Amino acid sequence: MKIAVIGIGAVGSVIAREMMMLPHDTTLFGRSRKEGFTIQEDGESRHYPYTIEDINAYEGDAFDVIFIATKATALKAISRLIPRMAHDDTEVILCENGMGFDEYFAAPIPAVVYISGQKHADRVEHFQDARLLIEDRPLPYTDRIIDDLEATTGVELEIEKAADFGRIRHEKLLINLGINSLTALSNNTAKIFDLENVTDLTRRLLGEGLDIINREREIIDPSFIDKALSIYQSYNREMGTSMYYDVMAEASTEYMYIQKYFQQHKGDLDTPVLDIIVTLLDAYQYER
Amino acid sequence: MKIAVIGIGAVGSVIAREMMMLPHDTTLFGRSRKEGFTIQEDGESRHYPYTIEDINAYEGDAFDVIFIATKATALKAISRLIPRMAHDDTEVILCENGMGFDEYFAAPIPAVVYISGQKHADRVEHFQDARLLIEDRPLPYTDRIIDDLEATTGVELEIEKAADFGRIRHEKLLINLGINSLTALSNNTAKIFDLENVTDLTRRLLGEGLDIINREREIIDPSFIDKALSIYQSYNREMGTSMYYDVMAEASTEYMYIQKYFQQHKGDLDTPVLDIIVTLLDAYQYER
Repeated sequence: MKIAVIGIGAVGSVIAREMMMLPHDTTLFGRSRKEGFTIQEDGESRHYPYTIEDINAYEGDAFDVIFIATKATALKAISRLIPRMAHDDTEVILCENGMGFDEYFAAPIPAVVYISGQKHADRVEHFQDARLLIEDRPLPYTDRIIDDLEATTGVELEIEKAADFGRIRHEKLLINLGINSLTALSNNTAKIFDLENVTDLTRRLLGEGLDIINREREIIDPSFIDKALSIYQSYNREMGTSMYYDVMAEASTEYMYIQKYFQQHKGDLDTPVLDIIVTLLDAYQYER
Repeated sequence: MKIAVIGIGAVGSVIAREMMMLPHDTTLFGRSRKEGFTIQEDGESRHYPYTIEDINAYEGDAFDVIFIATKATALKAISRLIPRMAHDDTEVILCENGMGFDEYFAAPIPAVVYISGQKHADRVEHFQDARLLIEDRPLPYTDRIIDDLEATTGVELEIEKAADFGRIRHEKLLINLGINSLTALSNNTAKIFDLENVTDLTRRLLGEGLDIINREREIIDPSFIDKALSIYQSYNREMGTSMYYDVMAEASTEYMYIQKYFQQHKGDLDTPVLDIIVTLLDAYQYER
């Protein structure tokens, strides 16, 4: 089986390392050719001497499974490269935060990603988790990978199929809406959920997001808002979010696929907090 | 006449340089003793070899005029040092943005400051303006400085007395509310006022601020909001604000004396935008 991992960053480096442990033909891709990458876990750095190929230069055979683990902002451009890397039955797994990019691909398999890390200039710092959730339907190639991951000793990554994937994906989107907005705009870490007015504002934002998700039918139970807030408060207080790390690095954020996705689906709902948050994130992104 | 300038930063360095040109005994103060400072104007840097004294170590005679040009966040601590630097008639001129700190001092002379610059590690970059506005009442020592500034060739600083100082000070506060909030929270410069939703949000924030200022009697004419927005749009689009530069340097902001001052004076007014902005700035400041 031929496997590709595209985007060897905070998420992709962990997937890449694990795929390299399986008895398959795995190729790693980035924006340019590079020798190896380093992952730091529990304070210890380890170098993985695998070549990362320039995705734009690839002219080889089609892959059976392609993991795309770039930032969501890169997906549109990546989607144009996929046809010449894929055959009719290639399983393309999208490992990004957010929603609104599935339609860039012919038959994507979106994943809810539980891999928490931060990309530094010289290494990826992997904080916790190594798990992908996908829809529960037969996927010939991916099913073999799932079996192989279970059968191989020393691997950490789990790929799980979830019967209620639609709900889980929306819950993750809501989780991201709350904590990414507040940490990015305050340039501060999960510690801000100590503050009562921050929690109150987040609760209002989550309420607006929940109403948008449940606009046509109830997908998420309203009690999930309390759960989300307690999840935020349980995080390591010095930990940021992908959008916080983007802002601290003065990079583009994925807000098009999180906050703006909500706004685009609000219909005639009144969402005063979301609207202000989107405006501030628009202003952040402007000419950046 | 003995003059002190406390805080040799973006504002204080310009005041200090100008006072040094007058035929008085001027002493400069900072947090620690330091030799000289550098001001960059129109791309050219010039070093001023004046000693900056450690304010905590001063044991000399009282000053007749003290300019305080620190960040507003330092005023409370500075106010405790003033009694041993002042006599009964010392004129203490506060050159800070914001309001809500006058009461730290016995008989302060607040100034509206038009000196735009940015403090870098090794120099102060002075963008434009060198003007202080103060209340129109007799101030024996300051009046002599005003005369001397006018009579001395080569000085740039102007100190002007304004009959409608109360209105002007509140207008400046409102100007600061709008542009400092939006640039600080978006980590972006005056260019963001190109965006219609940013302008709309700023207009709402200015409206809330205006209602707070005019709560008991009309101090600012409502047409000032349009004027403020056109001022923002006239700025050099790459120029930030003091609060923007603070955020980019991960430093404390003066929001206690701008956004939070408004919130503390809102009474029973409904201020949804201001409340969200204060919450985000609280979150920014938290444990920083």
